[in-house]
Amino acid sequence: MADDNPLVGVIMGSKSDWDTMCHAHEMLDTFGVAHECRVVSAHRTPDAMRDYANTAADRGLEIIIAGAGGAAHLPGMVAAQTLLPVLGVPVKSRALNGLDSLLSIVQMPGGVPTATFAIGDSGARNAALFAVAMLAAHRSELRESLADFRQRQADQVGSDRLP
Amino acid sequence: MADDNPLVGVIMGSKSDWDTMCHAHEMLDTFGVAHECRVVSAHRTPDAMRDYANTAADRGLEIIIAGAGGAAHLPGMVAAQTLLPVLGVPVKSRALNGLDSLLSIVQMPGGVPTATFAIGDSGARNAALFAVAMLAAHRSELRESLADFRQRQADQVGSDRLP
Amino acid sequence: MADDNPLVGVIMGSKSDWDTMCHAHEMLDTFGVAHECRVVSAHRTPDAMRDYANTAADRGLEIIIAGAGGAAHLPGMVAAQTLLPVLGVPVKSRALNGLDSLLSIVQMPGGVPTATFAIGDSGARNAALFAVAMLAAHRSELRESLADFRQRQADQVGSDRLP
Amino acid sequence: MADDNPLVGVIMGSKSDWDTMCHAHEMLDTFGVAHECRVVSAHRTPDAMRDYANTAADRGLEIIIAGAGGAAHLPGMVAAQTLLPVLGVPVKSRALNGLDSLLSIVQMPGGVPTATFAIGDSGARNAALFAVAMLAAHRSELRESLADFRQRQADQVGSDRLP
Amino acid sequence: MADDNPLVGVIMGSKSDWDTMCHAHEMLDTFGVAHECRVVSAHRTPDAMRDYANTAADRGLEIIIAGAGGAAHLPGMVAAQTLLPVLGVPVKSRALNGLDSLLSIVQMPGGVPTATFAIGDSGARNAALFAVAMLAAHRSELRESLADFRQRQADQVGSDRLP
Amino acid sequence: MADDNPLVGVIMGSKSDWDTMCHAHEMLDTFGVAHECRVVSAHRTPDAMRDYANTAADRGLEIIIAGAGGAAHLPGMVAAQTLLPVLGVPVKSRALNGLDSLLSIVQMPGGVPTATFAIGDSGARNAALFAVAMLAAHRSELRESLADFRQRQADQVGSDRLP
Amino acid sequence: MADDNPLVGVIMGSKSDWDTMCHAHEMLDTFGVAHECRVVSAHRTPDAMRDYANTAADRGLEIIIAGAGGAAHLPGMVAAQTLLPVLGVPVKSRALNGLDSLLSIVQMPGGVPTATFAIGDSGARNAALFAVAMLAAHRSELRESLADFRQRQADQVGSDRLP
Amino acid sequence: MADDNPLVGVIMGSKSDWDTMCHAHEMLDTFGVAHECRVVSAHRTPDAMRDYANTAADRGLEIIIAGAGGAAHLPGMVAAQTLLPVLGVPVKSRALNGLDSLLSIVQMPGGVPTATFAIGDSGARNAALFAVAMLAAHRSELRESLADFRQRQADQVGSDRLP
Repeated sequence: MADDNPLVGVIMGSKSDWDTMCHAHEMLDTFGVAHECRVVSAHRTPDAMRDYANTAADRGLEIIIAGAGGAAHLPGMVAAQTLLPVLGVPVKSRALNGLDSLLSIVQMPGGVPTATFAIGDSGARNAALFAVAMLAAHRSELRESLADFRQRQADQVGSDRLP
Repeated sequence: MADDNPLVGVIMGSKSDWDTMCHAHEMLDTFGVAHECRVVSAHRTPDAMRDYANTAADRGLEIIIAGAGGAAHLPGMVAAQTLLPVLGVPVKSRALNGLDSLLSIVQMPGGVPTATFAIGDSGARNAALFAVAMLAAHRSELRESLADFRQRQADQVGSDRLP
Repeated sequence: MADDNPLVGVIMGSKSDWDTMCHAHEMLDTFGVAHECRVVSAHRTPDAMRDYANTAADRGLEIIIAGAGGAAHLPGMVAAQTLLPVLGVPVKSRALNGLDSLLSIVQMPGGVPTATFAIGDSGARNAALFAVAMLAAHRSELRESLADFRQRQADQVGSDRLP
Repeated sequence: MADDNPLVGVIMGSKSDWDTMCHAHEMLDTFGVAHECRVVSAHRTPDAMRDYANTAADRGLEIIIAGAGGAAHLPGMVAAQTLLPVLGVPVKSRALNGLDSLLSIVQMPGGVPTATFAIGDSGARNAALFAVAMLAAHRSELRESLADFRQRQADQVGSDRLP
Repeated sequence: MADDNPLVGVIMGSKSDWDTMCHAHEMLDTFGVAHECRVVSAHRTPDAMRDYANTAADRGLEIIIAGAGGAAHLPGMVAAQTLLPVLGVPVKSRALNGLDSLLSIVQMPGGVPTATFAIGDSGARNAALFAVAMLAAHRSELRESLADFRQRQADQVGSDRLP
Repeated sequence: MADDNPLVGVIMGSKSDWDTMCHAHEMLDTFGVAHECRVVSAHRTPDAMRDYANTAADRGLEIIIAGAGGAAHLPGMVAAQTLLPVLGVPVKSRALNGLDSLLSIVQMPGGVPTATFAIGDSGARNAALFAVAMLAAHRSELRESLADFRQRQADQVGSDRLP
Repeated sequence: MADDNPLVGVIMGSKSDWDTMCHAHEMLDTFGVAHECRVVSAHRTPDAMRDYANTAADRGLEIIIAGAGGAAHLPGMVAAQTLLPVLGVPVKSRALNGLDSLLSIVQMPGGVPTATFAIGDSGARNAALFAVAMLAAHRSELRESLADFRQRQADQVGSDRLP
Repeated sequence: MADDNPLVGVIMGSKSDWDTMCHAHEMLDTFGVAHECRVVSAHRTPDAMRDYANTAADRGLEIIIAGAGGAAHLPGMVAAQTLLPVLGVPVKSRALNGLDSLLSIVQMPGGVPTATFAIGDSGARNAALFAVAMLAAHRSELRESLADFRQRQADQVGSDRLP
C-alpha cells in the first residue's frame, strides 16, 4: 500500500533526522498506510516547504508528520500554510537533548495548532500511530489493525519474563 | 450543533481546569461542533475514566480532548483505553507553571500516543482547532469554516495598528 | 523468604526498566522480604494494571513499588486503584534523563499520593529500603536488620580510604 | 484523637512553612490521627533536629513528615538519624518555585531514603494521606476511613458541574 | 529621521508583543534611526511574512528586528527568506517566562543565523542598540552618538547614590 | 583574503573552545573574509581582553565573534569595552551542556548588547554567517557569495535522498 | 564601626539591586563590620569596575561582596582583577527568576573562583554572614558575635509557636 | 607542608566523589597548604559528620571544603555545626548532571551560609583556590604564590597557539 497515492507525508528538516523519523515510516509501513518521506527544511528551503504545505491537500495527503530539532520551525510553519492536521516530532538535539525542539514545536500560539509527540524515536512512532488512528475514523480495516496492534502489544507485556 | 450527538468529548481532571478548558469548548462552539464537557479524574475516578474511554467510540465520539495539570495522567490513560485519537492539553500548574503537566502528557512511550498542545489557554484553543481540522477531513463545510477562520485571523493581523 | 507469600509487589512499566528496578529486588532480597517482580504497563495493559492494583491487598501485598520512565503514569494510576501505599521510582529516560519521569510521578494532585524516590538505581534501592522501614514497624527482626544495615553502611564509610 | 500520644510528627524547617504544612495537619485531623507539629530547623537547630530524630521512635512516633524549602535538608537529615519512615514535602521556594526544594529532598543517595511528595499544599496533603495509608496497614478503622475518603472524593468529582 | 526611508524594520508576531518591542522603537528613536514597526505573524500571516522578508532589502531596509513569544518562529523564518541580518527578541511568554521563546529563536541550525538578545524589554532595547552599532560601521555620526550614549550610561552609574 | 588586514576577530576564552570556534573560522574562510583567531580569557587575562576590545576598532576590525563556556563572560565584557558589534557563541559546557553558557551570554542587561547564537558548532557557524551578512551590507561581492551559499544550501536539501 | 576604614566592599551592578543587597549591608551592620556600598557595573562602567578591583586590597578591603542579575558578570570580573576573595550574590531576574544570575556567577572556569550564595535576599544575608565568618578567623570578638548570632537564631526557632 | 597540622579539611560524601575532589587536594598541594582529605557522609554517618564539624576549629582547621552530589546535604549540614567557613562543591550527579547537587548546596536559607563553586572539577579546583585566597589574608607568602599562580595562568593563555 506504500506505493499507492500517499495519505501521509513524513517530512523532516534535515537528512540527519531520518534516524528518528524512520520510526514513523516503519510504523506506517506496518499498517500498510501509503506515505511519502522527504527532507524539507523550513530554514534552508522555505519556498519548497511552502509549496509542500500548499499543495499537500490537493495531492491527496490527509496528514503531515513533520520532525525537526533545535529551533524546530518546520511543523509550525507547515501548519501555518495548510489546513491539514500537522503532527510534530521533536528530534533530540545535541546540546539540549530535544528540550528546545519540544518547546519550539509544542508552544504554538492560539490559532495554528500542531499536535506534538515525545522527543525522539518514541515520538516518531507515536505520531505514526496517531495518524493511523485518525485515518481509522473512516477506514474500518485500519481500526481493526489498530485494535490488533494494541492487543499484540498488551500480549507482549503479558509474556515478558524478568530475569 | 452543540446539542447534537457529541463528536468531541472535552474532559478535564478537575473542575479548576475549566478556566483553561473552556477555551476548547468556546472554539468548538465557534465551529458548531457538537461536543460534551465533563470532569473525569484519572486519580480520583479511575473507573469512571475507564468507562468514559471504553464507551466513547460507541457513543459516537470521534475525538477526545483531555486537559490536566501537574502529574497529568488523564490524556495518556484515556488514550490507553480507547482507539480514538486523544488530544492532551497541559494545564498550567501552581509550582512549575505547567512544565510538569507538559512532560507528563507529551513524553508518552512508543505504542500509545497522545497529541499534545501548548500549556494553558492557547493549548486548549489549539486542541479544539486541531479537532476541527481532523473532522474537516470528511466534512467539507467544516473545511470551509476552517479556511474562513484562518482568513479572518490573517485579516485581523493585517488590520492591527500599533500605537 | 522470597518464596513466601509476597509482601511487596515490584512492578515496572517495561522490561527495559529491570536494569533499574533489579536494585529494588536485590535490596528486598538482602532483607529477606518476600516479594514479586512483574512488568505491568499503565499504557499498554491498563486492565492488567487495574487488576493488579485491585487485587493487591487481597493477595496479601502490603506495599507496591512501581518504576516507570518518561510520562510515567504507572505509580500514580496504581495508587488511584488501591489503598495500599505505592512507592514510585522514576526511571532515567532517554532524552530528559528522568526529569520527566520524576515530575510525572511526584507531582500528584492532592488526594492520591505516591511516595517518590530518586531517579534511577538509587531511587530503586531506596524505595526498597523504605518498604523495609515500613514493614519494620510491626516486625522487630526487620527493625534490627535495618539497624544493622545502617551500622554496616556507616562502618563502610569509616573504613573508606582515599588514594 | 489529636490529643493522644502522637503517631505522626509533622516538622518543618521554618515557621513560614506552616502555610504549606498546615494542610498535612488538617488532613491528619480529618482522619483523627494523633500527631504533633513542630518547627525544627536542620540548619539553625541541628542538635534539636538530631534529638527529635533520635528520640522519635521511643516517644511512640511511627512516621515523620518533614517539610522544607530551598536547600531542603530537613527530611534527609532526619531520615539519616532515625529508622522511622520519613515523608518529605518540598515547600515552594521564592526564586525557583520549589524545584530546588524538590531536588534537595528527592535525590537522596542510595542507603537513606526519604519518600517525597509534590511541591506545596498538595504534597503536604498527600504526605498526610500516605501516612494514613501506612498506619492503616494495622488499623482496620483507618482503612475504612481511607476507603470512605476515596469514595467521597470520587463522588465529589461525579457531582462536579461545569458552568 | 524616523520619517525618512526606514533602515530598520521592527516586526512582531502579535499586537501584544508591542509592550516589549516598543523599547526597540524608543531606542531607535533616541538615535534618530529611521525605522518602521509592524505586526507580521509567522503562523497567522505566513504570506505577508514572506513578502516582508523578500522585499525588505529592496525597500532599503538594512536590518530586521523581530520579536516573538512561545514557539517563536518569526525571527528564524524571516532570516530564512532574506539575506539581511535578523535580530531576534524573545518575548516573555505566559507559562514558561520566555524560556521557550529564547530557545525557539536562538537554537537555529547551522546555515541560517538569527542574532538573539535577552528575554523581554532588555532584549528589545539591546537589539535596537545592536542595530545602531551595525549601522554605525558606515555612519560616523551614529558612532559618535553611540559613544555618547555609552558615556552617559557610565556617568549615570557613577552618580547613582544608594539610600 | 584571510591574510589581509582582518575584519573579524574570532576570540575564545580557552584553547579548548577551538573545537567549537574553528567552525566560525572555516566559515569565514569559505567566504574569504579576512579574520584573526585568538585565545583571550575574560577571567585569566582581563587586561589582554581589555586591550583587545579597546584597540579592535582602530586595528580595523569591524566585528568581534567571541566564544566561551560556563560562566561565559567574554562576549559581554568585550562588548562593554568596544563600540563594535560583538557576536557571542555559547560553547557547550561539561555539566550543563551549554545552558549556563547560553544564559551567561544572552541575558545581558539593557544598555550593552551581545548578539547570541546557538550552543556549539551551529552557533559558531552561524555567528560567522551573520558576520558575513553584516559585512555584505557594503560589499556587493559578499552579498552575492551569501546568496550563492544559500542557494547551494537549498539545492543540497533538494538533492538529499533518504535511504 | 561602619564609619571606620571599610573591610568589606559591597558592590552591585545596578541601583535596582539595592533591594536585595541592602540585606548584606544590614547584616554587616548588625555585626559592626565596617563596609562600603557602591554601584559598579561590569557592563556600563568596566573601567570603574577595574579600578575598584585593582585598588581594593590597597584600600584595606579584605573581602568583596558583589551582587548582579541576568548575565551577571560583576562577581567573576572583579574576581579576575583582584586577589581578594569575592562573594557573589545572584539577584533575582525578571524572566528567569535568577537562574541565569546563579549560573552566570557560579559556573566559573577553574582558575578564578567566586564563592556563590543563594538567589536573592537570603544569598545577600548569607554572603555577609560568610564575610563575618572569614573575618572572625583573626578577630575573636567577631567569632563570639557570630556564636551569639547562631545561638539567638537557634533560640528563636525553639520559641517559634505554630498557630 | 601537607604533613603539617592541616588548615583545610577536604571532605566528601562518598568515596566516588574523590575523582572530583582530588582536584581540590592537588590545588592545595600546589600551594603547599596543609590539609586533610576524608570521606564523611551526611546521610550515612551523621554523627561522624557532627563530630567532624564540632571539633574542626579546635583541631586547628580554618576552612572546610565539602563536596557532595545529588541531594547534597554535607556542606550545609557541616556549616550548621561549625562557625568555620564552609566551601561547597557540587559533584556532577548521574541523572541530572549536578544541577540537583548545585541547588541543594547553594540555595541555603538566610542564617547559615555555604560558599558554593561550580559543578565538578572546576568547582573543586576553585574551592581550593578560594581557600588559598582566604588564608592569604594573613600569610603574605601565600599572597605572593597566588599572584604568581595568576600570572602564570595569564602567561599560559598568552602563549596558547591555535592550530
